[in-house]
Amino acid sequence: MPILNKDTTLCISLSARPSNNGTRFHNHLYDQLGLNWIYKAFAPADLTQAIAGVRGLGIRGAAVSMPYKEAVIALVDMLAPSAAAIDSVNTIVNDGGVLTAHNTDYSAVLNLLKSHQVSPTLRTVVRGAGGMAKAVVAALRDAGFRDVVVVARNEEAGRSLAETYGYAWAPEAQDGAELLVNVTPIGMAGGAEAQQLSFTLEQVAAAQMVFDVVALPAETPLIGAARSAGKQVITGADVATLQAAEQFVLYTGITPTDEQIQAARDFMLEGAPSV
Amino acid sequence: MPILNKDTTLCISLSARPSNNGTRFHNHLYDQLGLNWIYKAFAPADLTQAIAGVRGLGIRGAAVSMPYKEAVIALVDMLAPSAAAIDSVNTIVNDGGVLTAHNTDYSAVLNLLKSHQVSPTLRTVVRGAGGMAKAVVAALRDAGFRDVVVVARNEEAGRSLAETYGYAWAPEAQDGAELLVNVTPIGMAGGAEAQQLSFTLEQVAAAQMVFDVVALPAETPLIGAARSAGKQVITGADVATLQAAEQFVLYTGITPTDEQIQAARDFMLEGAPSV
Repeated sequence: MPILNKDTTLCISLSARPSNNGTRFHNHLYDQLGLNWIYKAFAPADLTQAIAGVRGLGIRGAAVSMPYKEAVIALVDMLAPSAAAIDSVNTIVNDGGVLTAHNTDYSAVLNLLKSHQVSPTLRTVVRGAGGMAKAVVAALRDAGFRDVVVVARNEEAGRSLAETYGYAWAPEAQDGAELLVNVTPIGMAGGAEAQQLSFTLEQVAAAQMVFDVVALPAETPLIGAARSAGKQVITGADVATLQAAEQFVLYTGITPTDEQIQAARDFMLEGAPSV
Repeated sequence: MPILNKDTTLCISLSARPSNNGTRFHNHLYDQLGLNWIYKAFAPADLTQAIAGVRGLGIRGAAVSMPYKEAVIALVDMLAPSAAAIDSVNTIVNDGGVLTAHNTDYSAVLNLLKSHQVSPTLRTVVRGAGGMAKAVVAALRDAGFRDVVVVARNEEAGRSLAETYGYAWAPEAQDGAELLVNVTPIGMAGGAEAQQLSFTLEQVAAAQMVFDVVALPAETPLIGAARSAGKQVITGADVATLQAAEQFVLYTGITPTDEQIQAARDFMLEGAPSV
């Protein structure tokens, strides 16, 4: 860490339950690049006052996590296309008092589908219907996927998400899907279902690609099963890294090298709580 | 500096023209004491929004400098006696959303008068009528000084300050004072009058003690003249150190040792701009 001084630029995160991910990723990149910047996570006492503080203190950027991703829309000045696409914000950039909201989860998923050359003709199942599922389903829609089924035990949430983006809902994943996407907490370190899979081994065997948005651990049981079966994978750590790297570019205007991003990713994942 | 994480506590300063003093002093003490705290200076875009941010982000403490020391009173919840004594705030402590304002400049001056066993019977001249002069004059009054003359070129400001605390105003310092106090920028590094003295060498020679609130440089021309003449001195660096140490105690609840405070003072003064 550099010695702080009066010119140090601050970026923050706002989350009811902050993790150390953003703090470790961004501060590591600031350090690698010799930037006089710091990043700190906050659990705000009050969202409206916290956003006033972003303006009043001239905080350059703010990541926004649960449960603030939609409530914060009323408090910013402009929505970038990524946030407007899903009416959900995970990033705010402060340009001299003008706050612009972005959603780098959405754009990271879209960019990962492209960089992995995932064909939009794949029959796709998305399991989950929460906030991150919205980013994933919207990115699939905007990447041109036509055959997508949203699987969720909660019919109301599942139907609502699916129909918003022109897709179908189902209560259970049916066999025959080529792209399997998990957007539930199943497989998350420390969770009740940490050792479980969102899809059966048969479904994994029948798929071409498995995409798990769970970032901790980087290698979930589902990703492990997919690798064992020789399938292409996109991991939640890939999403977490790319969305944070996109935030970094939005805040600083600097595009780090792949090696720098990899080093920050490794540092971020080292700091993950053990299972 | 420690590696920042989600539990790092933030303290800040709010000033139209931040210096590095508080940042260096507080961060050095956090480091010495192994505290997971950081301190950062801000030049706020808007004071009201900045104070909302202190509440909303749960920022533990905020130093307040020019030009916000009086305007901030309307934005806090309680005034501690040190701030109420002079209707001026230089420190805010946030206890779970309740903001209490203090003035550690006032209390530091009062404590320095006591620790140096300065007799309140001394005939005293205070030169200056700005915000810091108010802290000094109020501390003299509350330390029991009865024969105090406030010297200021601006008659209105000088008279107002003097009469508020039951003292007299004069346009020029007259001979015969035993305690000389400079609260003007005369002697300040980088200022137009950096090489000048607020009092004549004859006045210094006739005094028992010289007190200069200019902190940069720590050894002003006035302090140098007083030391050469064998006089007792209190320096602006003493005030800056003690008021910052009092802030540190208010924020953290921890009282550093004298050695720790001295090390933080040395680090603070090392970072001062060169003359």
